[in-house]
Amino acid sequence: MATKYVYLFSEGNASMRNLLGGKGANLAEMIGLGMPVPFGFTVTTEACTRYYEDGERISPEIEAEIYEYIGKLEAHTGKKFGDLENPLLVSVRSGARASMPGMMDTILNLGLNDEVVESFAKKTNNPRFAYDSYRRFIQMYSDVVMEVGKKYFETLIDELKERKGVTLDTELTADDLKYLAEQFKAEYKAKIGEDFPSDPKQQLMGAIRAVFRSWNNDRAIYYRRMNDIPASWGTAVNVQMMVFGNTGDTSGTGVAFTRNPATGEKALFGEFLMNAQGEDVVAGVRTPQKIEQLKAVMPEAYDQFVEICGKLEAHYRDMQDMEFTIEEGKLYMLQTRSGKRTAAAALKIACDLVDEGMRSIEEAVLMVDPKQLDALLHPTFDAAAIKSAKPIGQGLAASPGAACGRVVFTAEDATQWAVERGEKVVLVRLETSPEDIEGMFHSQGILTVRGGMTSHAAVVARGMGACCVSGCGDIKIDEENKRFELGGQVFNEGDWISIDGSTGYIYGEAVNTVEAAISGDFERLMRWADSIRTLKVRTNADNPRDAAVAVKFGAEGIGLCRTEHMFFEEDRIPAVREMIVADNVEARKKALEKLLPMQRSDFEGIYMAMEERPVTIRFLDPPLHEFLPHKDEEIAALAKDMGLTFEQLKATVNGLHEFNPMMGHRGCRLTVTYPEIAQMQTRAVIEAAINVRQRTGLNIVPEIMIPLVGEVKELAYVKEFVDATARQVMEEMGVEIEYLVGTMIEIPRAALTADCVAKQAEFFSFGTNDLTQMTFGFSRDDAGKFLSAYYEKGIYESDPFARLDQTGVGKLVEMAADLGRKTRPNIKLGICGEHGGDPSSIDFCYKVGLDYVSCSPYRVPIARLAAAHAVLKNR
Amino acid sequence: MATKYVYLFSEGNASMRNLLGGKGANLAEMIGLGMPVPFGFTVTTEACTRYYEDGERISPEIEAEIYEYIGKLEAHTGKKFGDLENPLLVSVRSGARASMPGMMDTILNLGLNDEVVESFAKKTNNPRFAYDSYRRFIQMYSDVVMEVGKKYFETLIDELKERKGVTLDTELTADDLKYLAEQFKAEYKAKIGEDFPSDPKQQLMGAIRAVFRSWNNDRAIYYRRMNDIPASWGTAVNVQMMVFGNTGDTSGTGVAFTRNPATGEKALFGEFLMNAQGEDVVAGVRTPQKIEQLKAVMPEAYDQFVEICGKLEAHYRDMQDMEFTIEEGKLYMLQTRSGKRTAAAALKIACDLVDEGMRSIEEAVLMVDPKQLDALLHPTFDAAAIKSAKPIGQGLAASPGAACGRVVFTAEDATQWAVERGEKVVLVRLETSPEDIEGMFHSQGILTVRGGMTSHAAVVARGMGACCVSGCGDIKIDEENKRFELGGQVFNEGDWISIDGSTGYIYGEAVNTVEAAISGDFERLMRWADSIRTLKVRTNADNPRDAAVAVKFGAEGIGLCRTEHMFFEEDRIPAVREMIVADNVEARKKALEKLLPMQRSDFEGIYMAMEERPVTIRFLDPPLHEFLPHKDEEIAALAKDMGLTFEQLKATVNGLHEFNPMMGHRGCRLTVTYPEIAQMQTRAVIEAAINVRQRTGLNIVPEIMIPLVGEVKELAYVKEFVDATARQVMEEMGVEIEYLVGTMIEIPRAALTADCVAKQAEFFSFGTNDLTQMTFGFSRDDAGKFLSAYYEKGIYESDPFARLDQTGVGKLVEMAADLGRKTRPNIKLGICGEHGGDPSSIDFCYKVGLDYVSCSPYRVPIARLAAAHAVLKNR
Repeated sequence: MATKYVYLFSEGNASMRNLLGGKGANLAEMIGLGMPVPFGFTVTTEACTRYYEDGERISPEIEAEIYEYIGKLEAHTGKKFGDLENPLLVSVRSGARASMPGMMDTILNLGLNDEVVESFAKKTNNPRFAYDSYRRFIQMYSDVVMEVGKKYFETLIDELKERKGVTLDTELTADDLKYLAEQFKAEYKAKIGEDFPSDPKQQLMGAIRAVFRSWNNDRAIYYRRMNDIPASWGTAVNVQMMVFGNTGDTSGTGVAFTRNPATGEKALFGEFLMNAQGEDVVAGVRTPQKIEQLKAVMPEAYDQFVEICGKLEAHYRDMQDMEFTIEEGKLYMLQTRSGKRTAAAALKIACDLVDEGMRSIEEAVLMVDPKQLDALLHPTFDAAAIKSAKPIGQGLAASPGAACGRVVFTAEDATQWAVERGEKVVLVRLETSPEDIEGMFHSQGILTVRGGMTSHAAVVARGMGACCVSGCGDIKIDEENKRFELGGQVFNEGDWISIDGSTGYIYGEAVNTVEAAISGDFERLMRWADSIRTLKVRTNADNPRDAAVAVKFGAEGIGLCRTEHMFFEEDRIPAVREMIVADNVEARKKALEKLLPMQRSDFEGIYMAMEERPVTIRFLDPPLHEFLPHKDEEIAALAKDMGLTFEQLKATVNGLHEFNPMMGHRGCRLTVTYPEIAQMQTRAVIEAAINVRQRTGLNIVPEIMIPLVGEVKELAYVKEFVDATARQVMEEMGVEIEYLVGTMIEIPRAALTADCVAKQAEFFSFGTNDLTQMTFGFSRDDAGKFLSAYYEKGIYESDPFARLDQTGVGKLVEMAADLGRKTRPNIKLGICGEHGGDPSSIDFCYKVGLDYVSCSPYRVPIARLAAAHAVLKNR
Repeated sequence: MATKYVYLFSEGNASMRNLLGGKGANLAEMIGLGMPVPFGFTVTTEACTRYYEDGERISPEIEAEIYEYIGKLEAHTGKKFGDLENPLLVSVRSGARASMPGMMDTILNLGLNDEVVESFAKKTNNPRFAYDSYRRFIQMYSDVVMEVGKKYFETLIDELKERKGVTLDTELTADDLKYLAEQFKAEYKAKIGEDFPSDPKQQLMGAIRAVFRSWNNDRAIYYRRMNDIPASWGTAVNVQMMVFGNTGDTSGTGVAFTRNPATGEKALFGEFLMNAQGEDVVAGVRTPQKIEQLKAVMPEAYDQFVEICGKLEAHYRDMQDMEFTIEEGKLYMLQTRSGKRTAAAALKIACDLVDEGMRSIEEAVLMVDPKQLDALLHPTFDAAAIKSAKPIGQGLAASPGAACGRVVFTAEDATQWAVERGEKVVLVRLETSPEDIEGMFHSQGILTVRGGMTSHAAVVARGMGACCVSGCGDIKIDEENKRFELGGQVFNEGDWISIDGSTGYIYGEAVNTVEAAISGDFERLMRWADSIRTLKVRTNADNPRDAAVAVKFGAEGIGLCRTEHMFFEEDRIPAVREMIVADNVEARKKALEKLLPMQRSDFEGIYMAMEERPVTIRFLDPPLHEFLPHKDEEIAALAKDMGLTFEQLKATVNGLHEFNPMMGHRGCRLTVTYPEIAQMQTRAVIEAAINVRQRTGLNIVPEIMIPLVGEVKELAYVKEFVDATARQVMEEMGVEIEYLVGTMIEIPRAALTADCVAKQAEFFSFGTNDLTQMTFGFSRDDAGKFLSAYYEKGIYESDPFARLDQTGVGKLVEMAADLGRKTRPNIKLGICGEHGGDPSSIDFCYKVGLDYVSCSPYRVPIARLAAAHAVLKNR
């Protein structure tokens, strides 16, 4: 049987969303519920897919099927395309499976031509309305279907208004508009080389093609990428009889929500305009009235609308977002859909619907999008305080949250002001570098002049959950003299500023902030999620403060504690550098001995914060050159500090240079070369665990993670040092403790040979950041340059660093998980890349049977909810 | 049943080589053949493996089994360990499955102690011989078993000689040697803190342990890596009754080959020393006599030996390398094995054995090691000429072959001298860079001051099959003034030098060279190999000259033609640079149009050279910054040439900078960004094919290869441009030709998703160089720094860039081959990484069912033979 590509509204229902799109399915459903909906038909999403498969053309069969349905629509409405007595006018609207508001094209008033408009003017007794509709149609059609460009038409309108000496469109008369329609057609002919199509069927085919085409316009592609919508879904096209809200004082149009989309409060919320079309409400030329006021204006239509709202909410069991038009006193429903809502509203509505008996707990959990929670997890500006503040500039919204503090210009100053004086500071830098870590950590927020969304400042700040505005190029910074200028104001060290990492706004004053907390509806929903999920949620945390935040947000352990961040701190980096320049084992061991007490006390702090929750500690990972300066002046200064000649230190720096540092001497390759580093780190891990146990009775079971393993013998080699050192420490201290040794799976070869690796590894943690880089063969630092072209050209639909690539990287993860379990059935499996906080990736982790995901502290609640979704969606 | 770890020689035979090692198995075989072999037993290779599994100790069961076999040996020989009347003395020798001459340890004269030596002196009536044996034993045991260090004993000998006023060891008397033995034991006690062991059983266990341990000494590890011998094999230990060639004038010792190992000539070849032990022959203190002379000295023993030689060769059906000792007129065989031979000898012996009816053709083919052929494939110095030449310096033997030419100092000069003047030149540089390609191509050889075996010069030269000596640090070069100094001589531009890329020697004069050719036995064997193999052999060649060499060596097509090498040539690079700095499509197209005729004529030349053999052309691969200079002076100069400001060009260079160029904007990523590059290259490929067809009637079917694909949509996107351009060219020229579009599989993700990729790709070529880098996660340029530690520590046994890692990378290759065939059953599969010329990798390619391998021209015969081996070995 041939595929059916067109459905009358009476042939569909809400369950056919994949085929008819959200809009089409819901229009059909409302028809089924007996609600007043202008009749029409839907061309399916499959027709859109066919359109692209056929090389961006509508095949003759589908065209014939559309013509057949025009006939059915004409029969149903008693109107006819091109008929002078009773012409059929239609709207043509996109409607994808998922709502993509405003991303694709719409054409209204289709079916008008020179003859039809004339009789339409007579029949409606409203020539101005008729000709206004006509010129709008020509303009919209030329723009959307033929891509002529709005500006040519706007110029013609402006010229006419000038000639007539008027300023508003509404001051133009019916004749003016008729004249404009003529001019528009002439413009069309000049640009396209053909007459404006007068055949409504031809118009319709053009409009349908335009909607299909708009599925792949830049903003739709971008929206899909941001919202994980696959390009393969396609859009449906809804062809619907026009109704007019702008025929006079008994007509109007509006939009409304069954509950407040900002707060979730249970009360009708919306607005309407009398004598207007839908686009006027959006355009904001006139101020709309509140929906309640409709009761006074048109009580009958209002009551009918309220009744429909109640029915729709009860029917869909969710807050609805509706569009309606009243034509000559008669109410028509043009759309209903589940309404977009703020995170706070989403939580309240989900909880209320459970309390109202409309939804089960599991359904309620599924109603809240995990990603939305992000908005609730960072400090925000005090609502009253921010009202009176005015931004003085804007950068990139690099890491969400609000921050307020005194300006400092160096990481050292940040640490000093914050730690010694107890001041809140905002660190302002041209750009940040790894040595700034400690100062960044002590800052409320970070503001940089250079660097994008993946700059050092942005990446580190997001990891820390710290607020960051990056790349504000308007700032004129003078780091030497500790001052900057923005928006005409000069800021010196110690001056107050505030920044908003969710909007990129910068305020030249102190604006109070409030901390995030999980309470009320939020807490209730998270408890429900916890009762459903099976995946554990851990956090990536390198210090007690982050660990404590994560525990507050529900973290059940640390999945990744990066020891190198500790190495960058001001009091440690000299010893680290001493270790690097050491030219023999003894000298290296001496330097490492200086680091030992510091590392040990770091670990003690983290164990205390996590109590008995598991802590995975990754051994030193970055290449050593990251710890040394690279500019000659800095090398000279450091050489002097270290008692070396410039040439000696320069030679060390040069010797450590790498062509591809990502693929260089780092991770366990360092420990294979210098096992004494692993010895020191093991000693710190085990001594700290024993100390905390003796001090508090807490039973700490550290998990030691060896990074960048590609071959089991590598791991075996390092593990031997780890085990020997651990045994020695336990003997020295006379205390036995448990500990695990495992590895990160971040090199493709480790995944491919995971059955061998599991012979040595007691756990795997998938390091999907590096695994993605190696599997795709591009470095995250460099890929920015070409990935944008890939998105534009539809080659990649989403950022593989944000959303796990299940086809390629995922295949390796699944293979490694299976191979690992084959060797060691109870092997512990987790993920600690940034994907650990991404809902779609968490769903994948659930499906391949990982034990836990680990993410930054501020994403822990998101992961908890996403883990619950994974259970429910995969049932 | 418990594993048997010890075998008497009478219990074994030649088929038990894996268990008994080569030496043990052959000793047992000779016993079986009734030949005179001193009796003994073999501790198996499995005992060695157990030794390592048990933490480098010999388990009590194995120790007990060894003691049991000592008893059996005593019973068989009638001698006893420690017995004063008839003491048993033994040699303890290693013997692995594959011959590893001199890599592991040996201990002779074991069983002597203070009492035994005294009675031994009496019994042999030769106290000097007895005490010399004793002091040698103490010295060897201390060194090998206890690692005391030879030097302490040598000092003692030197002191004694000085005190006695003698210079030769032979001048020391029996008493002197007895005194030395005492001193040696005292030294042993001082160093070890225990008495020298007098119990022969204890001595024996120490010696066996030492041999096991020596399996993992540095030189054995290195030898295994060079010869693809797995560490898991282990070594056996042979304990054999001592016989003495140094008891007087009726004793002697020698080594002999059944055929000449240098030429393959069928005649006994060897030498012997009367009144000597084996080590004396090797030490070279006395000059040995030719084996034929033994007939005169000891006719009976000689005749017996000749008879045994004949029997052994007939038995093993191969040229044998034997050791023998004559004790008091009685002949003993100590070893027989297949003799090592030169490549020329290997070919002659293989052919002769077929002609003599001793071997089948297939067996003969298997007797020649493909790797050995390398020595026959490069130009060599004329044998007469090189005799009188003296090297003036030595660098690294970076790329084999001999070269002779006049010195030039720049790539431009090389091209000019060679092309315009028709001179032979040797390019001498501090180091080479990609811009030097053309000059390198026109040089007979390349000599560099800096850079190792994987430097640019070395890698490129090997690819070209050009001779190269790299890293000769003794050269003082003054590039500016075009002169260098070496070995006290100064060389100016135009002076003659000669270099040998197989030895690293540099000659300050012209030494004639002779070209390699495949003829005689070589040709005969290659024809046999061709009749057996199923894998096709293609070559990597970027120009007609290399293509012609490869065809001469039997190449059946081009598997990889890198188009970027053509881009570096002097007349093209300006257009390439113009394309790079172009800031819009039109400007870029204009620059590309300049490249078009040059690329087209390149392809025409290659098609002509290859006739109708398939040619795979890879589109532009390297990142664009490789085509621009990086130093400010050079940028300034180029900017001037190009009519740009310094700042403009510097900005372009900076904009192209990448953190990890290996994983950056290159390969098909360039074509996705700039499809016009693929359009130009397609046009050149297709126009050239049509031109050649019209000119010569040759039917050219080009294979267009898109590099660095990681996702099928990438390939689909580029392929669309390729196909559209190809169609257009064929329409313009009015000729239809066939062509294929395929991809390199060099990104792990492409291998993992090969079923999808095969929907677009008509062939796969495995680019195992990059695939190895990405799968291991280390860059070839950087890995040198840490890989040596990996080899030392036994983590990797071989260089994964030289020998395909079958466990990890191979798994991806196999997976991709299977997935590719699933989608497209007749998909063409090949390999074009450097592994394509490596025999063990070729064996793997055969097993996973590839259609062809592709390697550099000079490795084509090696690949042909290896492909035949693959068939025979996998039957």
